[in-house]
Parts: sequence; structure tokens; C-alpha cells
Amino acid sequence: MTTPDDPVADSVTSPVAGDPLSGLRLGIVGLGLMGGSLALALRGRVASLLAVERRPDVRQTALRQGIVDAAVEELTDDTPPVDLLVPATPTRVILDTLVRLPALRPEGCAVLDLGSTKRAVVAAMDALPPAFAALGGHPMCGKETAGLASATADLFHGQTFVLCPSRRTSPALWATALALVDAVGARPLVLDAAEHDRLVAAVSHLPALVASTLMRVATDEQQWAVSASGFRDTSRLAGSDPRMMLDILLTNREAILDALAAYENELAAVREALARGDEAGLTEWLAGAQVGHAAYRRHKSGEYLFPPPTRP
Amino acid sequence: MTTPDDPVADSVTSPVAGDPLSGLRLGIVGLGLMGGSLALALRGRVASLLAVERRPDVRQTALRQGIVDAAVEELTDDTPPVDLLVPATPTRVILDTLVRLPALRPEGCAVLDLGSTKRAVVAAMDALPPAFAALGGHPMCGKETAGLASATADLFHGQTFVLCPSRRTSPALWATALALVDAVGARPLVLDAAEHDRLVAAVSHLPALVASTLMRVATDEQQWAVSASGFRDTSRLAGSDPRMMLDILLTNREAILDALAAYENELAAVREALARGDEAGLTEWLAGAQVGHAAYRRHKSGEYLFPPPTRP
Repeated sequence: MTTPDDPVADSVTSPVAGDPLSGLRLGIVGLGLMGGSLALALRGRVASLLAVERRPDVRQTALRQGIVDAAVEELTDDTPPVDLLVPATPTRVILDTLVRLPALRPEGCAVLDLGSTKRAVVAAMDALPPAFAALGGHPMCGKETAGLASATADLFHGQTFVLCPSRRTSPALWATALALVDAVGARPLVLDAAEHDRLVAAVSHLPALVASTLMRVATDEQQWAVSASGFRDTSRLAGSDPRMMLDILLTNREAILDALAAYENELAAVREALARGDEAGLTEWLAGAQVGHAAYRRHKSGEYLFPPPTRP
Repeated sequence: MTTPDDPVADSVTSPVAGDPLSGLRLGIVGLGLMGGSLALALRGRVASLLAVERRPDVRQTALRQGIVDAAVEELTDDTPPVDLLVPATPTRVILDTLVRLPALRPEGCAVLDLGSTKRAVVAAMDALPPAFAALGGHPMCGKETAGLASATADLFHGQTFVLCPSRRTSPALWATALALVDAVGARPLVLDAAEHDRLVAAVSHLPALVASTLMRVATDEQQWAVSASGFRDTSRLAGSDPRMMLDILLTNREAILDALAAYENELAAVREALARGDEAGLTEWLAGAQVGHAAYRRHKSGEYLFPPPTRP
């Protein structure tokens, strides 16, 4: 694991002096739940906010509500300059943006993405020319509803914001990213990209597949009529955006297949114990899950790797 | 499906005249989450509340806090008479209580249980002598924490309360049960016991197994550190009481094995599509789950089979 005191990348000139955010010209690619929430959280904290957003209705809404100062359809060589570009689209669109950047911005810029998987993104960042500074980011929060309409200024409050260094992470970008994480009320957690992908496969991508599988089994209204909060919560992630999920699956395939294999083994174990009426086996299996859940709840109610930021 | 207008059982004398609850001597077997919440919800609405509770500390707490008027360790032929007995223990303990009742109460009484599965319970009710009136009950609500300490007077508020008739369901017991469901703020839904068990296998028992399986896969603190609300909600039911879950599994084995088979097929389908990088297949699978989830959410936000009771 690399820490903020141990930067690995080439140095680039800090985009601003003093407060790393106050003079910052920020560009956000994709005004969905994540990009929109970042814009709402940083509005008034940065010098200017430019949106790069394909959908005309979303651009219009964002401009009319004063969420951003300017909005363009696509990143081109005509797009006004920004100091920090934040791709906040599905992962494979982020990869495409990173590949096109050197031609669009030969002078370089700083990049911090918000994509759900990090290994492929950080590899693309590693390949950027030295004029670029780039850092992988992943705020560990979300909703089962997508889009600017679901965005809120407090989405990141109290949440973990993972930062994954690339070969192109400069000291100045570290400072800017940590200031940004602090400004949105999140806690920074620095992780190697491969480690991030392995961890979230089990606690984020697998739960999404589990919820969708459940929803594909319980498809009729009679079932829904007798369902209660247990089904509601366990199936919640089935509402996730399929486009975002597809990119997650395809850019974190191996780690997700590993997590699925472990999951299918555990499920087969309880199914077999049930089929043979093995009371002792079922009790041990159920008790193991309950003990794990209790330990997880204690972990969440206790200490974090980084203390929560103090809010004014 | 049998409706309240279509009773099937022998008639027994109504335990009370007029308001079916005001003169009722109620006995609750098991002061856990369900039994304790029922006592809290009906305190002051019935003539007297007797608890049958094995654990001395729970009996003491219930008496000290005035949750019940009296408490005994076990149901014996010395236990003071009650008009309505409500078994609220794990399912197999309910079955045992029903088998022992005729010897303990040769004069008969009315029984409404709160067990999680209904086919085995209603079969045991069918076998009671005609001096008994008996109706299966299942409030569709719960928490991942068990015990009297988790019980609340509003646990049943706005929730569905399933009623499953037996051969021994009398008109008087229908009246008492519907008054009880109304008094705790729930909505009655009358279902055949086998149909109930088939439906809840998919939307209650399967989600509990799914959550426990997830918790058995995500066992280390590094995973928990990056987990967010998605993991929290999808794994919540893993905290369920293993004793209660064991009785559910063993008394609804076939329906749960059927639900598990459907679930394992759906999961294998997405795993295979992911392994072969089948974008179209993954998109269709994910979109199907999202469409189902949206329909389920519309169902839950809209009409119910029974309108919610008006509260004072």
C-alpha cells in the first residue's frame, strides 16, 4: 500500500497555490449520481465548474439549477482549460477518455477519476505522458438510483473515499485530491488498485449480483405482497444501473469470478446440508454467518483507518 | 384462498362478548422479538397478559417493566387459564406446544401462533380436538436482532399480518384475530398455509440464506473497511437468530430447496456470461433484474390487497 507520504509519481506544477481548491478550475465528465453529487458538494468551493455531459437535458438542468458554470457535450480540443479533470462515467468510458486525453490536451492536466473499478483505470493512467498527473479515486457510496436527479451534496459525507496511486500521481495532485476528499466530507483510504478491485469484488460487486439474482427469482406480485424489509434490503442493489454494472463486471472479471466461486461453494454447502436434513451442519453454517455479521457490525461501529474529518 | 367471510372450522364459544379484545385473557409463549412486541402493542388493550417464558431473566424484565401481568416458566396444567394462547417461539417449539396442548388443556382454548412457516403448524392445528380453535399467523416484519430487548410496540405497524386457516378456525377466532391484527396496526392477508410457505421461501427464507452466504464470503476486516451501504443492506439478514432460521429451514425444506435451485440457476447464468465475456447476455440479465426491481418498487408504493387501517 502506498500512503500520501510516499508518492510514486512524477511531479507536476501545482494547479494553484495556497488552498488547493479555491483557485481550481474543475471539469467533471458525466453528471450522473457521482459527478452530480461532486458538483453539488464543491459548488462555491472551487474557482469554476465545467461539465462534460453528453445528454442535452442534463446539461440544461445543471446550468439552469446553477450546479455548474458551463457545460459542453464532449471533451474536444476546443473545451476550455481545466486544472483538474474528474471522469465520473461508467468505467469503460473513463478508459476511453484517458486514451484520448494526450491528443486533446498535449499540454497535460491533472486527472482524478471516480470509477467503480481501479486496476484498468490506473493502468491507463500509468500510460499517460509525463505532462499528466493522474490518481484513481472511488468514493465508497452510492444509491440504487442513478442520474443527476438522485445526486445530493452530502452523498460523500462520512464515507470512505479510496485513492489508488498511479505512476503519474504527483505530490501536487495528492494535495489537491486530499483537499477535495476533505471538502466533500469523506475519509481518504489509500489502496493499491489491484487490492481495491479484489476487496470491492466481495463487498460491492458480489452483493450487486446477489441482489439482482434474488430479484430475477422473485418476479411475481404475490411474492412481493408478502415481502417485507428483509427482501427490500437484500434486493436493493438490483436497481443499480445496468450500464454501470456491465462496465464493473467487464473490468473486474477475474476478482468477481473468484468471489462468485467462493459464494457458490458456501451456498452449495448450506443447500446440501438442508437437503440431507443435517441439523448440526446447518446450525454451524448459520451460526458462522451470525458471528461474522456481529464482528462486521462491531468493526463498523468502531475505529476507522482514518478518523472522520471534523466538520464546521 | 380462504377469506374471513368463508370460515372453515368448527365454531367455538367466543371468548368475550362485544369488543373481542377488551375482556381477553391473553397468553404469549415466548417473549422474544415477536412475542415481546405483541405484548407491548396490546398492553392495556386486553384484560390480562400472561407470559410463558423459559428464561428467568426475561420473565423478570417483563414483570419489572410491566410488559405482562404474570409470567410462568412453562405451560402446565397449573398455568392460569387464558382465552387466547399465542405461541411466538421458533417453529418447532410451536409444534411441540400444539402437540402437548390437548393433555394440558382438556377443556380447549383458542390458539393463534406467530411462527415463520405455516404448513407444519396448520397441520398440527388440524389435528387438535374440536374443543380447540386454532389459526396460523405470521406478521411479515422482523429485525436482524432477536429478543425482548429488540421488541417495540410499533413493530407490526403498517405491516402485512398473514393468517392461515386450519380445520379448527372458528368464526369467533376469526373475529378475535382480525381485531388483534387491527389493534397492532397491521393489515390482514389470508393465505393457504402451503401457499404462504411457497411465497415466503422466495422473499424471506432465500434472502436470509443469501445474506448469510455473503457474510460467510466477506470475512475479513480489510473487506469491511471498504464496504458501504450496499454490503450493509445485502448482508443484514445474516444477523438473524440461527435457532429461528434452523426451524424455518427444517419446516419449509422443499419450498426453500426449490427457491435455492432457481437462485443457483440464475447465478450460474450470470457467472457463465461473465466468464465468456458475453456483453449482450450480461446486459440482458442485469436489465431484467433492474426492470423487476422497478416493478417491485411500484408495487410496494401502490395498492395493497387490504387498505392500511386508519390510526387514531
